Amino acid sequence: MSALAGAPRRERRFEVTFCPERESVRVPAESTLMDAAKTAGVDLTSPCGGDGLCGKCRVIVRQGNVTARPTSLLSREEIRCGYALACQTTVTGDVEVEIPPESRAEAAQILIDLDAQRFRALHPAADAIEVRHAPLVRKLYLELPPASLDDNLSDQSRLFREIRRRHAAPIIQLGLKVLQALPRILRQANWKVTVTLGWRGATLEVLQVEPGDTSVRNLGISVDVGTSTVVAHLIDLDTTARLDAEAVYNSQRAWGDTVIRRITHAATPGGLDELQESVVGDINGMISALVERNRIAHHDITAVTVAGNTTMTHLLLGLDPGPIRRSPYVAPSTAPPPVRAVEVGIKIHPRGLLYAVPSIGGWVGGDITAGILAVGLRRSSAVQMLIDIGTNGEIAIGNRDWMVACSSSAGPAFEGSGVRHGMKAMHGAIERVEIGPEGNVHYRTVGGTRPRGICGSGLIDLVADLRKVGFIDRSGRLVSGATPRTRERDGALEFLLVPASRSETDQDIVVTQADLTNLLSAKAAIYAGSQVLTRAVGLDFGLVERVLIAGGFGNYLDREKAVAIGLIPDLPPERICFAGNTAILGANLGLLSRDAWEEMHQIAESVTYYDLINFPDYYDEFLAARFLPHTDLGRFPSVRQVEAVETGA
Amino acid sequence: MSALAGAPRRERRFEVTFCPERESVRVPAESTLMDAAKTAGVDLTSPCGGDGLCGKCRVIVRQGNVTARPTSLLSREEIRCGYALACQTTVTGDVEVEIPPESRAEAAQILIDLDAQRFRALHPAADAIEVRHAPLVRKLYLELPPASLDDNLSDQSRLFREIRRRHAAPIIQLGLKVLQALPRILRQANWKVTVTLGWRGATLEVLQVEPGDTSVRNLGISVDVGTSTVVAHLIDLDTTARLDAEAVYNSQRAWGDTVIRRITHAATPGGLDELQESVVGDINGMISALVERNRIAHHDITAVTVAGNTTMTHLLLGLDPGPIRRSPYVAPSTAPPPVRAVEVGIKIHPRGLLYAVPSIGGWVGGDITAGILAVGLRRSSAVQMLIDIGTNGEIAIGNRDWMVACSSSAGPAFEGSGVRHGMKAMHGAIERVEIGPEGNVHYRTVGGTRPRGICGSGLIDLVADLRKVGFIDRSGRLVSGATPRTRERDGALEFLLVPASRSETDQDIVVTQADLTNLLSAKAAIYAGSQVLTRAVGLDFGLVERVLIAGGFGNYLDREKAVAIGLIPDLPPERICFAGNTAILGANLGLLSRDAWEEMHQIAESVTYYDLINFPDYYDEFLAARFLPHTDLGRFPSVRQVEAVETGA
Repeated sequence: MSALAGAPRRERRFEVTFCPERESVRVPAESTLMDAAKTAGVDLTSPCGGDGLCGKCRVIVRQGNVTARPTSLLSREEIRCGYALACQTTVTGDVEVEIPPESRAEAAQILIDLDAQRFRALHPAADAIEVRHAPLVRKLYLELPPASLDDNLSDQSRLFREIRRRHAAPIIQLGLKVLQALPRILRQANWKVTVTLGWRGATLEVLQVEPGDTSVRNLGISVDVGTSTVVAHLIDLDTTARLDAEAVYNSQRAWGDTVIRRITHAATPGGLDELQESVVGDINGMISALVERNRIAHHDITAVTVAGNTTMTHLLLGLDPGPIRRSPYVAPSTAPPPVRAVEVGIKIHPRGLLYAVPSIGGWVGGDITAGILAVGLRRSSAVQMLIDIGTNGEIAIGNRDWMVACSSSAGPAFEGSGVRHGMKAMHGAIERVEIGPEGNVHYRTVGGTRPRGICGSGLIDLVADLRKVGFIDRSGRLVSGATPRTRERDGALEFLLVPASRSETDQDIVVTQADLTNLLSAKAAIYAGSQVLTRAVGLDFGLVERVLIAGGFGNYLDREKAVAIGLIPDLPPERICFAGNTAILGANLGLLSRDAWEEMHQIAESVTYYDLINFPDYYDEFLAARFLPHTDLGRFPSVRQVEAVETGA
Repeated sequence: MSALAGAPRRERRFEVTFCPERESVRVPAESTLMDAAKTAGVDLTSPCGGDGLCGKCRVIVRQGNVTARPTSLLSREEIRCGYALACQTTVTGDVEVEIPPESRAEAAQILIDLDAQRFRALHPAADAIEVRHAPLVRKLYLELPPASLDDNLSDQSRLFREIRRRHAAPIIQLGLKVLQALPRILRQANWKVTVTLGWRGATLEVLQVEPGDTSVRNLGISVDVGTSTVVAHLIDLDTTARLDAEAVYNSQRAWGDTVIRRITHAATPGGLDELQESVVGDINGMISALVERNRIAHHDITAVTVAGNTTMTHLLLGLDPGPIRRSPYVAPSTAPPPVRAVEVGIKIHPRGLLYAVPSIGGWVGGDITAGILAVGLRRSSAVQMLIDIGTNGEIAIGNRDWMVACSSSAGPAFEGSGVRHGMKAMHGAIERVEIGPEGNVHYRTVGGTRPRGICGSGLIDLVADLRKVGFIDRSGRLVSGATPRTRERDGALEFLLVPASRSETDQDIVVTQADLTNLLSAKAAIYAGSQVLTRAVGLDFGLVERVLIAGGFGNYLDREKAVAIGLIPDLPPERICFAGNTAILGANLGLLSRDAWEEMHQIAESVTYYDLINFPDYYDEFLAARFLPHTDLGRFPSVRQVEAVETGA
């Protein structure tokens, strides 16, 4: 019929069915399986944001036609079995696809929720340094002398007078809403009220006036906003007790696992809002869980401190991080003012305040400021070094007289990204590895379950022991024929860590040559950064009294093996300490102590930031450090000794 | 039919028709004519709020049945002619009512709009005292050094550094919204921006950052919020020029003409909101008129200062004024913090600030603080006295070393309320009166039109001259038979000022014995207050170097006649000055000078408030002052001399 002649050409569409739930969607031809999964509401992990770099969105094509771009992140065997990267595979017919559990974002989320139990058990006390107890937001019960003909100050002045009797507060601010409610509350409560006071720099703000004595309930939340993981602690601001903790993945990883990818997405229309809402959602989710579990109310929480790298802090506050990655690499704000938490969407007391730990520069953020405070770097007469190994690796050196810091773009290999079977230190992750001279492998998983993959500390052990037994050479290359576990797949060598029969995923868990190359680059970046920074201030490692390793990662690290692979300088074990998650420890201290909060501002202002791109020798150092432990064995005498012994020299 | 048996009994209703517009409404029996007028949307003046005390809601009942409560505010002749007070008259049948022009609120509004022309012509300069030009909100054009690898401060710190190079500002605050826009604006504008900076106490807030140089346009509004009249000036904050002015009646007068009535209404459900919206509407109306006439935009206005008595300030800010009128008479706030103008609904720049001049106490408000600043009382070595005659009469005495103040509840007689033909100094108001010995009356009206009534300055002249020619005795009683103009009506004497044939209203304009009694009470309250306050500090009037009369009223006052009736102390004319509307002069100075603003805070804190109820001799003084000029003629030697001459002694 002629009526159809003008109809638009029908777009070709194919049906994609996801198993085991058998969720079906119709998508246009040339859609990727990742697009189809999004349409179906199936949440795949995608740390690299769909660029085919991380290899985490593995699916199994059971039936139908697809076209896959070549990738080194899958073995030929896997490809034969139907494995494909969802983001690199387009549909060319109706397809049935199976999603293995490890590729599901929601599964990861559930695991990390369980994992919070572990986080909770760690960090027994934040008392590495002593600070005066003077919380950023405090509740004060006041019994005002009632107004009388002889004492006829206004309500506002009467309140301020009483606050000043208890508090050194030269400047007190008061919002109109609080002032409007004041006369009624004072009289109904017979002049006995609780004021909630929040510091904004040198100014004390009256956030709320409540009838009677409610001072017993005053809670705060500290948050470590990591690029990968967001951790929250619930703190009693009155007793200083840490009541509970939560941890979740940063949902922003849907847009990529690195800071750079987040900055790139923030530059797209609506991108900044999406990223902000995403991390705010994560924080609100944790707060709700903490509120429910501890039987408190959202309005009992009056303050939130946040430590994050500079970009994470910007995204949380809705600040454009774009200038951070363009020369001259300045941040819009390194010391954002306290804001009302509700202004960014965080659900606590409606007038509660959100405090962001100040950053040192665009690439050394509030997490490092918090860390420097927490480990007491600024208070020590001896020189100390803080190495925070996260998605980036930041290094700070100094003492009470001077401090310097830099950032090395180590990449997220130690967080499990860019490593075929890498994963975070969650249930089922191999966290310890020992390889005997005959190639027998011993390992321990988080939670003691069957292994699903391997996390950072396991990877360090693995590299150290592969080298120790000679299965890899000093440049990190697998030695062909050294052990039956080393085998060739798809034209490259790989080491079989756990056979499919023993793994949770019914797949072999291997470490490939590409994985080893990535790990060596990551450790080289961190070591080279430490080296360049130390030399830039005219020191050498021998003059560093203590090296403090920070990061969620650091809790499981074998110090000697970390030295053995050349990740950290070769110092005696007693001079290497694990400080844990120093970002959240510092955020806790700030929450509990205005002095600590001020000290973090002094730290952020006084640390000299060294941009490694200004050091031409950094790249040489990096190349030299891409060996095990280093090109220059003289720098690792303890390792040289072992090497000498083991090679029978 | 049984279906109708349960129907509610029909309420009896009557039709009320208002002339000349012939607007008809049906109202329930026993409604007052005031209720009917409200229902019909006919806006009657009602300064007393419907209590039958002011006599301003006069209407003429042309036909039909009404019941009127007895009132002394209408003559029998008037009652015979059908005059009635709308608030005291209930309908008992269908009625036709005429509303004379002087009873219409909207007419009054139109008149005062014209009258603003006069206000504008007054107050040639606010330069009575010298202050440093440093506006509360200032625009600053900055050319920032662009960020570079060598100078890689964050955007925020770069901005603050440049502000501090130009401004002593220890504490700078910045809202999240401004910070969020900062990186884009700085770069788009090539680091050349205009910042709008507003002081909040010792803290400087960055209200806005705009690209390029917009510093040429920065305007402020100063407002005198009087109980009766609201006046606004438009000020160029850069050049200090006063560009324009507006004045309107305070719409709150619909709920009564005194502070007490407003406080009472604020205590009713929704009352505080109604009062706030009402005065905010007045201010917004004036701002719109100023914006339109001067071809500016609302967002060019960045600051508003407001001087008002304590209750007016509370109502504007939405603060409950209730405690002011209950023992121990404390105000909720005497120094409210600056707030964003939009928070109370005032339409200027969305981040512009509203500053309320601090009050001295519950009954001596920011208008007096502003007045004390404007007349230089605090800077003078000699003792001076400021008398502000408005709806209340406030008195301040002091010099640079000490200051005291009190409030005497003089009532609004000098503003035309509670006086049969009293009115404000608007077109048609008799503002000057002279009575010859033979009883011939000369008068001058505002605008030179036919008289409609008599305003404060005319009333002072009238009382002074009635006494001078002996038509009233020293106690203010009309002397029967002294002149044909004195006649009896309704059992009391009255003086015929203007016969109906010459008046605009076609009615006789008279002053009744009740009017004279009210006026004597008002002047006695003010004099007694001055007297008690002066004595309380151990002085007498002779030691007061200068008496400054303030109030819109004061501009037309005949100094010698004001002394002759005993309103102000008997000092030589050169020691009595008219200072005009000192409230708005002080508000202007505060807007233009942060120093002046701080000085007002020092004034508000350092003035000692004397509550006259604590002085038992106040009432005796008041009674003694209810004579002309005073019981004790020794206090008024200049008047005694005249009296002696005129009585031939």
